[in-house]
Amino acid sequence: MEKKRIQILDTTLRDGEQVPGCKLNTKEKVRIAKKLDSLGVDVIEAGFPTSSPGDYKSVQEICKSISHTTVICALSRAVEKDIEVAGSALKYAKRPRIHTGIGTSNCHIRYKFNSTPEKIIERAIYAVKYAKRFVEDVEFYAEDAGRTENEFLAKVCENVIKNGATVINIPDTTGYCLPEEYGNKIRFLKENVKGIHKIILSTHCHNDLGLATANSLSGIMSGAEQVECTMNGIGERAGNTSLEEIVMIIKQNSHLNLFTNINTKLISSTSTLVSECTGMKVQANKAIVGINAFSHSSGIHQDGVIKKRETYESINPEDVGIDQSSIILTARSGRAALAYRYNKLGYLLNKHSLDLVYSIFLKYADEKKEISDMELKIILKKANLNNNKNKVLHINTNNSSIRINVV
Amino acid sequence: MEKKRIQILDTTLRDGEQVPGCKLNTKEKVRIAKKLDSLGVDVIEAGFPTSSPGDYKSVQEICKSISHTTVICALSRAVEKDIEVAGSALKYAKRPRIHTGIGTSNCHIRYKFNSTPEKIIERAIYAVKYAKRFVEDVEFYAEDAGRTENEFLAKVCENVIKNGATVINIPDTTGYCLPEEYGNKIRFLKENVKGIHKIILSTHCHNDLGLATANSLSGIMSGAEQVECTMNGIGERAGNTSLEEIVMIIKQNSHLNLFTNINTKLISSTSTLVSECTGMKVQANKAIVGINAFSHSSGIHQDGVIKKRETYESINPEDVGIDQSSIILTARSGRAALAYRYNKLGYLLNKHSLDLVYSIFLKYADEKKEISDMELKIILKKANLNNNKNKVLHINTNNSSIRINVV
Repeated sequence: MEKKRIQILDTTLRDGEQVPGCKLNTKEKVRIAKKLDSLGVDVIEAGFPTSSPGDYKSVQEICKSISHTTVICALSRAVEKDIEVAGSALKYAKRPRIHTGIGTSNCHIRYKFNSTPEKIIERAIYAVKYAKRFVEDVEFYAEDAGRTENEFLAKVCENVIKNGATVINIPDTTGYCLPEEYGNKIRFLKENVKGIHKIILSTHCHNDLGLATANSLSGIMSGAEQVECTMNGIGERAGNTSLEEIVMIIKQNSHLNLFTNINTKLISSTSTLVSECTGMKVQANKAIVGINAFSHSSGIHQDGVIKKRETYESINPEDVGIDQSSIILTARSGRAALAYRYNKLGYLLNKHSLDLVYSIFLKYADEKKEISDMELKIILKKANLNNNKNKVLHINTNNSSIRINVV
Repeated sequence: MEKKRIQILDTTLRDGEQVPGCKLNTKEKVRIAKKLDSLGVDVIEAGFPTSSPGDYKSVQEICKSISHTTVICALSRAVEKDIEVAGSALKYAKRPRIHTGIGTSNCHIRYKFNSTPEKIIERAIYAVKYAKRFVEDVEFYAEDAGRTENEFLAKVCENVIKNGATVINIPDTTGYCLPEEYGNKIRFLKENVKGIHKIILSTHCHNDLGLATANSLSGIMSGAEQVECTMNGIGERAGNTSLEEIVMIIKQNSHLNLFTNINTKLISSTSTLVSECTGMKVQANKAIVGINAFSHSSGIHQDGVIKKRETYESINPEDVGIDQSSIILTARSGRAALAYRYNKLGYLLNKHSLDLVYSIFLKYADEKKEISDMELKIILKKANLNNNKNKVLHINTNNSSIRINVV
């Protein structure tokens, strides 16, 4: 069976930047856009040009600097001026896309727009038609689609397809959906909207309940062809689907028969660049890109990883551009890890010496968070072992792949 | 239909603490345990007593200080000494539980234990029987169950149930499963293991692919009765299922017909305590407990939230113990947010004044990440509006619920 390609729309520079405490200047945005281009994303959502002169300029500069076939996308509300400004900001793009749309849930129609479903469809159609004056590629978002009744959503989709939309985005704006529910929504549209197979159906999930990645996965397994996501999962409130998570899920699960164009070996460096430029720190245990994602501190796990990496790691760190899994020494570490680390320092301990050193190590480790190489040497001294050739063999090696001998 | 209770086993103090850079002393562990007790968790996994003298002491002190009916659980490998030490550490618990187990996947059996499936079942049975000498409540974990063949896993479960296990834990140790797959595993066990209805079936998911919460949800929707999780999702590598996420999913989705005993209003303060004691920072956009989880900085969202909170928030912040959603002013903010914040400062702006102030605001905001109250006053001065009674009405109020008048 032929694999189906899932397109990645990265919105780090638009929805990702929509975060308190995060503000990128034009130079930083261009730098990130270039990196996303190398990473292999299909679409870069570069900004929301009408929101400020700075954002307009950033979108324009990104368009100038990406010579590749990557699509550059700009957001706009279903408002003439927004669309005009987006069209103008995209002038230099090789492949421009305007992303316009309007809220379709009862809550949005009633409280945000003080409008009616019929009028919302009219505005949606008008926005798509108007955007078509500026670009060929028009993506329509049905804001708060997660809480929009499927029948009405289908009607909106049908109308915008008829009027030229090339991509339709189904955002779970409030991060409200459960995976099954979101998948059912996508499947409903695939089965009930006339013309849906002519366009690209896109997921856009938020992480308010910690389900953004699972919802996106459910969406593509139900027929969506594009995932909107951000590096490190940054974005408004609890953020968006993490690019690194959805991409690695697709890569790790060949039975899904899906693939993306992402060069996963650039994930780690892209994550670091985004974190540094935005100032949005990645938590240590963030999946795939957190500094602890491939670290092991418990004895049971360390022992397993030393014997065979796959016992505790399903992803190979090298696949995302990280050199090797690290073995951190704490009070939860066991003898195997201690021997491993001594080995890396050039000391080969026999069983008796290891027992002796381990008991001293545990006292140290109960006091401290992490035991450093320097402390390992102090411990060896304390055990009177640093010069004892019978018990410790100083092998003077930097070869980290040396066989560990814990007899 | 009667709602089914899902038990929450919190393993912040065991699997959560198994993290490089995180080391809690006994005092901190007792403090966290007491807080978890107030939060309403059903089981506190207090530690892994055999791993170090410090951990042994912590488990012991936690047992002494929890007078409530909360179960206190201690981890052990399927090793006599581990089980003895766990039993001893639990001596003072009102309701002690030993959590013992062994790896059941081919990878673990072959590479970690250099053993055979038959011998692993023997060791599992022996461990459960041995633990029963110390406590009545014995939980068995089938390590790496995520990658264990369902038929063999069922056989292991049947054997440990026969020999007295009261709870069976199905860990996706490497965070490898997709939600559907994990749910199918739980359902398979529910349908094929003799005696499974006499015991509690538990999920234990890791977040290596960002799916821990979705997998736990899939597990309980397929019949599991207990979720193992940590506050803020901390834990080895990418961490564990976040307590706050799975609990709020259950609370927000009444159609699931599930409930927990958690007092959700204590979630925010528990999260802060765990973060402070462990030193493990929570990223700004962490679902439910990140500082941005209920913040809005984009103009579209701010406008919506000001009109009606539910337009962009599916969870009421008060439900998790947070006072109110905040409106942060950045270059992505619109007029409604600006008027709202001026209003909170006591200034009511008419349309003309707001337009004038907004253009100055945008120039400031393009330079800065966030605009403070002090800067709002400077902007007002710049616009020559601070003393102009015709354009700005200084209303001198601290009432944040005042009606916003952006005409």
